[in-house]
Amino acid sequence: MSRHEAHRMLDVALEEARAGGAEGGIPIGAALFGPDGQLLGRGRNRRVQDDDASTHAETSAFRAAGRQRGYRGTTMVTTLSPCWYCSGLVRQFGITRLVVGECRTFQGQHEWLAANGVEVVLLDDPRCAALMTEFIHANPELWHEDIGED
Amino acid sequence: MSRHEAHRMLDVALEEARAGGAEGGIPIGAALFGPDGQLLGRGRNRRVQDDDASTHAETSAFRAAGRQRGYRGTTMVTTLSPCWYCSGLVRQFGITRLVVGECRTFQGQHEWLAANGVEVVLLDDPRCAALMTEFIHANPELWHEDIGED
Repeated sequence: MSRHEAHRMLDVALEEARAGGAEGGIPIGAALFGPDGQLLGRGRNRRVQDDDASTHAETSAFRAAGRQRGYRGTTMVTTLSPCWYCSGLVRQFGITRLVVGECRTFQGQHEWLAANGVEVVLLDDPRCAALMTEFIHANPELWHEDIGED
Repeated sequence: MSRHEAHRMLDVALEEARAGGAEGGIPIGAALFGPDGQLLGRGRNRRVQDDDASTHAETSAFRAAGRQRGYRGTTMVTTLSPCWYCSGLVRQFGITRLVVGECRTFQGQHEWLAANGVEVVLLDDPRCAALMTEFIHANPELWHEDIGED
């Protein structure tokens, strides 16, 4: 995958993240793209908006894509390195590629996915990092709740 | 945790699994219990019922429990050994214990969780195994879709 294509996909996830932040939610966004680069689903963390602990951004995009017979050739893009929950989703369903906006503000499990056969493209996008840095600074308790830290 | 207590919890998950099967869905159920053994949430796989690929039984029970500040001391019980997605959920949120109804019909990641500090109680419940054996035999394509196998 080209850098240009990865950034095109990231822009969709970033739009979701910003929309979540504007709603008072946790500003993480994601999208799932098909083998030909077509958008299958997009979504954002919905903990605050829906009072739903189970909907991280990747889950939200995966749900929005609807039932699929398989995920070969698909790409999950997320503004932030995925936690164990979302990494497990990518691994279980055999999603082929993962594009990560940044891992500065949270070191998720993208390396574990790469070690297990997922093609990982790690960007270091300053817009994604700035969004999370500001959010965590202003809402440390909410952030810790979202990643299950005491 | 006593065997008796594990079975008491499993019975709740099994009720969910059977209700799912009766609805024409994938018969897997789960529940989340608090540190004092109180029920926090229960749910079942909702792929068929809600056309929702993202809601495995464990996710459903986790969502039903609502937002929690932490999961220390909690127990997730599931009728079937959890896939990577649901195992990632247990690990990310620091759920203390996992009770598994059976792993004969699907070898999930309960051993990976045990190796990573989760207290795992593996039951070998014939009711859970029979439910899945019959389901998989009658609906192989739906089952493969649910676990992302081609």
